[in-house]
Parts: sequence; C-alpha cells; structure tokens
Amino acid sequence: MIKVSVMYPNSLEATFDMKYYCNTHISLVAGILGDALKGGSVDSGLAGGALGQPAAFIAMGHLIFDSIESYQQSFIPYTEKIMADISNFTNTQPQIQISEITL
Amino acid sequence: MIKVSVMYPNSLEATFDMKYYCNTHISLVAGILGDALKGGSVDSGLAGGALGQPAAFIAMGHLIFDSIESYQQSFIPYTEKIMADISNFTNTQPQIQISEITL
Repeated sequence: MIKVSVMYPNSLEATFDMKYYCNTHISLVAGILGDALKGGSVDSGLAGGALGQPAAFIAMGHLIFDSIESYQQSFIPYTEKIMADISNFTNTQPQIQISEITL
Repeated sequence: MIKVSVMYPNSLEATFDMKYYCNTHISLVAGILGDALKGGSVDSGLAGGALGQPAAFIAMGHLIFDSIESYQQSFIPYTEKIMADISNFTNTQPQIQISEITL
C-alpha cells in the first residue's frame, strides 16, 4: 500500500479552512478517486517538537492507494480539477510526498 | 487523539536503515511509551508529487497518543534516550510535528 501525503506548509500568513477541507474538498477528491482510494486521514498541525514552536505543516491530508499505478491512474487525470479547489480553503501551496506504508 | 510525526528530511547524502528502525528503534520507543502509545505507523519516502522528484522525507514515523499531555508525560522524560539511538539508523536529524487527528 502507498500513502500520498498532501502537506500544506505553515507560516505566519498561512490560512486553512479545515471545515471546508473536510466537508467539501475531501468529498470532491473521494468522489473522483472512487474505488482506487483505500483510506485516508486528515491532520491539523498543532505544534512543532517543542511546545510553543509552530507546526511545519498547518494541515496534512493522507490518501491510501494499493499502488503508485493506482494513484496515477485515478488521480493524475484530475489533478487540475482537484488543484483548482485548493484556493477555496487555503492560501498555501501543498507539498506532495508519496510513501510506501512500511509498518 | 494526537499524532506525533517524526519526519526525517531527505537529501542526496541522507541515509536511513529502515530494517534497524522497524526492528530495533520502534521497539525501544514502544517499550518506553507503554500504554500511552495508542498506535503508530511508518512510511518510507518514495517520491515527490511528480515522478522522478525525490521525496521530501526519506522516512516518517507516526505515534498516536490520547492527548498532548499523555505524549509529554510518556515521551519527554526519555527524549535524550530515544534521540541517542537515532545515529544508529540515520545521518539525518528529524523534524517533529504534533497534529490533531481531525479525520
């Protein structure tokens, strides 16, 4: 299984509408991906390693797929449509990482 | 529930012994945290958003706790002991993020 982590960098100016993200954006993405999407989760950044230190990412969304091929086939053709929704909930540009779920 | 993500930055020089990490380091950490640890997972970085682009993090370990207080009480007193093991599996210094599991 692989995990596609969509990580929104934090900064003093960063805004993120978590309600819109969870209620609208995730539904849009899940609808597009269909059966290819095997699971997912959403994290809200609270802090860095030391208390009082800001989180590096204001939010992170994680999407689970069977394989990179499955991600590519289901997500890539709709990247533009998915990315077009981003300005509706944040003024940041996400950083994407593809990982193998090892444990 | 909160997630403590221990993220190891990738670079051309970065090394990471995933076998040691999964077999030895995770056991050390789990033994120290005991019942405070409610779950966890390990990701191996494969790629960035575009194919051929390197992953931002060579590896990520995620630890689940009931609350920030539970993390602080179980982890912080042993930070030095846990950090001392890091050089046994990587030449990188992890970046830590505490997140609320929102979805």
